[in-house]
Amino acid sequence: MKFKAKILPLRTERVAVVLSQDDAAELGLLPGDRVRVSLDRRSFVAEVEIASEFVDQGEVGVCSFTAETCSIEEECVVEIVPFARPKSVEYIRKKFDGGRYERVEIGQIIKDISDGILSDVEMAAFILANEIVGMSDDEVQWMVEAMVENGERVSFDRGGVVDTHSIGGVPGNRYSMITVPTVAAAGLLIPKTASRAITSASGTADTMEVLADVNLSVDEIKEITERVGGVIAWNAAAGIAPADEQIIRVEYQLEISPKPHLMASLMAKKVGGGAKFIAIDIPIGRGAKIENIDLGRSFASSFMEIGRKLNLKVAATLSDGSQPLGNAIGPALEAKEVLNAMEKKKGGDLVEKAIGIAGILFEMTGVATNGYMHARKIFESGKTLEKFREIVAAQGGDENVGADDIPVGDKIYTLKSTVEGAVVAVSNKSIVKIARTAGAPKDKGAGVYVHKKRGEVVNAGDPLLTIYAEKDWKLDNAIEVANTKQSFDISGVIIEKLSYGRWWP
Amino acid sequence: MKFKAKILPLRTERVAVVLSQDDAAELGLLPGDRVRVSLDRRSFVAEVEIASEFVDQGEVGVCSFTAETCSIEEECVVEIVPFARPKSVEYIRKKFDGGRYERVEIGQIIKDISDGILSDVEMAAFILANEIVGMSDDEVQWMVEAMVENGERVSFDRGGVVDTHSIGGVPGNRYSMITVPTVAAAGLLIPKTASRAITSASGTADTMEVLADVNLSVDEIKEITERVGGVIAWNAAAGIAPADEQIIRVEYQLEISPKPHLMASLMAKKVGGGAKFIAIDIPIGRGAKIENIDLGRSFASSFMEIGRKLNLKVAATLSDGSQPLGNAIGPALEAKEVLNAMEKKKGGDLVEKAIGIAGILFEMTGVATNGYMHARKIFESGKTLEKFREIVAAQGGDENVGADDIPVGDKIYTLKSTVEGAVVAVSNKSIVKIARTAGAPKDKGAGVYVHKKRGEVVNAGDPLLTIYAEKDWKLDNAIEVANTKQSFDISGVIIEKLSYGRWWP
Repeated sequence: MKFKAKILPLRTERVAVVLSQDDAAELGLLPGDRVRVSLDRRSFVAEVEIASEFVDQGEVGVCSFTAETCSIEEECVVEIVPFARPKSVEYIRKKFDGGRYERVEIGQIIKDISDGILSDVEMAAFILANEIVGMSDDEVQWMVEAMVENGERVSFDRGGVVDTHSIGGVPGNRYSMITVPTVAAAGLLIPKTASRAITSASGTADTMEVLADVNLSVDEIKEITERVGGVIAWNAAAGIAPADEQIIRVEYQLEISPKPHLMASLMAKKVGGGAKFIAIDIPIGRGAKIENIDLGRSFASSFMEIGRKLNLKVAATLSDGSQPLGNAIGPALEAKEVLNAMEKKKGGDLVEKAIGIAGILFEMTGVATNGYMHARKIFESGKTLEKFREIVAAQGGDENVGADDIPVGDKIYTLKSTVEGAVVAVSNKSIVKIARTAGAPKDKGAGVYVHKKRGEVVNAGDPLLTIYAEKDWKLDNAIEVANTKQSFDISGVIIEKLSYGRWWP
Repeated sequence: MKFKAKILPLRTERVAVVLSQDDAAELGLLPGDRVRVSLDRRSFVAEVEIASEFVDQGEVGVCSFTAETCSIEEECVVEIVPFARPKSVEYIRKKFDGGRYERVEIGQIIKDISDGILSDVEMAAFILANEIVGMSDDEVQWMVEAMVENGERVSFDRGGVVDTHSIGGVPGNRYSMITVPTVAAAGLLIPKTASRAITSASGTADTMEVLADVNLSVDEIKEITERVGGVIAWNAAAGIAPADEQIIRVEYQLEISPKPHLMASLMAKKVGGGAKFIAIDIPIGRGAKIENIDLGRSFASSFMEIGRKLNLKVAATLSDGSQPLGNAIGPALEAKEVLNAMEKKKGGDLVEKAIGIAGILFEMTGVATNGYMHARKIFESGKTLEKFREIVAAQGGDENVGADDIPVGDKIYTLKSTVEGAVVAVSNKSIVKIARTAGAPKDKGAGVYVHKKRGEVVNAGDPLLTIYAEKDWKLDNAIEVANTKQSFDISGVIIEKLSYGRWWP
């Protein structure tokens, strides 16, 4: 049937057309069905929405995104015929009955997700089935390969390309901003791609953006990495493994992230970035993504096994994820803390983790036999800071940037302890909730500074945390959260600390 | 934050508002999140969509459905704050880990679905989890109760209220149009609610609509049933168990219908219609919803068990679902066939099934000890036709309607056999595909007449099926389907017929 196009003043991120109820019935179409739209000598496949008004009989509504992507102009005439569902929907259904995807099947599913062909409901089916039924290491490997193939890639002509990534879940987890320059200072290449916050208060890309541009193309990532040794870029801007963004968007709505997806997502970003040696950080503990250490070990084994299948060297570390890393949470506060540590050449757990992971990369690549000591020497020599400033400059930032230059929110409130005792727990979830309510990550200067961490002794009246915000109303909301959600467990009975930590080795 | 409302020229069936990217980030909102929208002294919860254009900062886009439902006018100022996800999303997630819903939990899920509060992605999660993990009989019972509570109900002051429903999947399965008047003629009340086609060529509601109005309210269903003994109405128009429509819409997109949902859907429609004695038809065979007889028996047991929990008397029949019932497929063709059978007082498998099920209802209610013979007597006496015409008249149709009065499509094509042999199979799927391509159920006169059924002998040149259409282009498309999709297996070797039917008891 022929239809006259009507461009609709709305945008969807998928290719979709809108038909009137009568025309949809005439063509035997139901919501979620697909059609082939043809004009001139071109044609494309689109999902069908059925309108109860605004689109008259004989008209086809085209959202502006589809109009642009497919070059449809107002009032042009198109031919529309029903089109079968993509094969990938059938492949997804295999999983409902406990089946396994073949290599070509998962490949097609990922391709269709990358091309924006699968609907949210179909992606939800993919995610749910994989969460409930699970995926084998083979399936994860094929998923990684397909995610990488259907996206941009960085590749290097020389060896010694390394990278690190955390599975996340810990506030303030900005170790890679120190690991990257430390590793680059030793002559390795580290094209680090990082995420922005989805549910957290800041991702490494958000924090790095306080200091430099993180929206780099794959060509820029390659050029800067080869020139200065390292880069810290936002993975989505580079277009590496674009299926990941789509999957994560629907996973957020379902409030789940299936283990195989978490692994595939991480590995695809690293493989697409060109790394051959990868150090993976798996934070463990109450309030982290993984609460149980045995599950953490099983993740680590799967990562190593999938790495082996992909011809990569993978090391995994289990780290303490039961409280924030460092003391700062929120983009500017974290950037300040990272710079401060490099300037002062010390910085507690943040620095320990950063040089620990740099050390692992040194040992994996044969740069040093005692990687930790080698990394510590570089860090303490000031070469880490020097290299970091080179990277910042290469990404368009200020080459002389210092911790004191970073502005943070000027609406401030400090929460004080009303009791005396030892901190037995700091709640990741509460701290993140307070920081987000204060405006992070949108307001770069917003966040939380944690004054006391586990094991530290507090007296009544001691500051526990300080909230920073850029807007009064957000500060007020954040104070309300801080006063209703308990962020600290404080006890005078030392034994409770051990009892709480009983799962820890 | 305060926003100015902008009514958008689009309609979604759910309560949703559209914010600009900046404002969404300012409020920390992601797609799929919800907000509370307040104005005057009213407030409502809406899902958030994030626009990349068309909605400016400070504006909130409101689709026309939401504007009407929630009385929002152009340019009025509303307050918007983030709102937690409904509890029901958390309950759904329990099922991912193999958990069970509590009564209040499944009750809340169904209420939120009925109220249009759950998104399609969230409903997909509900459907998928129940498909993969399954539901206990208790959970199905509670789901039925919640579906009925959150919708319109019919209730009768007297006893002897019966009903019948098929789980479907068989083309031409219009037995209830004969069962209903037969049962009503014996003095029982039968407020039959029926479905429209979703993926089939015609639902009982579509076929009945050829003869009378099926869009009846619950009050009309009650009034007509009490006055003439029976009714055949479209369940959705009556507003009985509205959650069912929502769930089925998303199930269609996933191409699944989980067993527990199929049971809950059927039972909720019957309970909401006021029946106390229910005869359930479970067609079995290749191309039917259930291919395996053991699975059919398990369905039957579950139906009876759930009926017991709901204080209902339930009987289930396993019937041959491996080929169409009767010979006509498509609304008008089926209406004609049903009337013809009642006028001629005979009609093969269609009539056998109709009076067989009427007989079961007679035995369940104590109307007769040999229900089948009682039903046959009524049917052959002409009382079935007489009562059927009363029902048609009560629903606004022609009280003297006859088979010859029903017009069917005048674009006709007959497919003939090229070989000689016995029909060993008639494909439900091909026949439905041809009938739908010819225009059914939208074009009432479109469909297929099957000349030969399983076991019948054909000679080369004998007609196998006739396609009816209202439009030439649809007839052409249907002929193409008929020529490429094999609808009949024909063999001269009689043994193959037995071999094919080996699963049949």
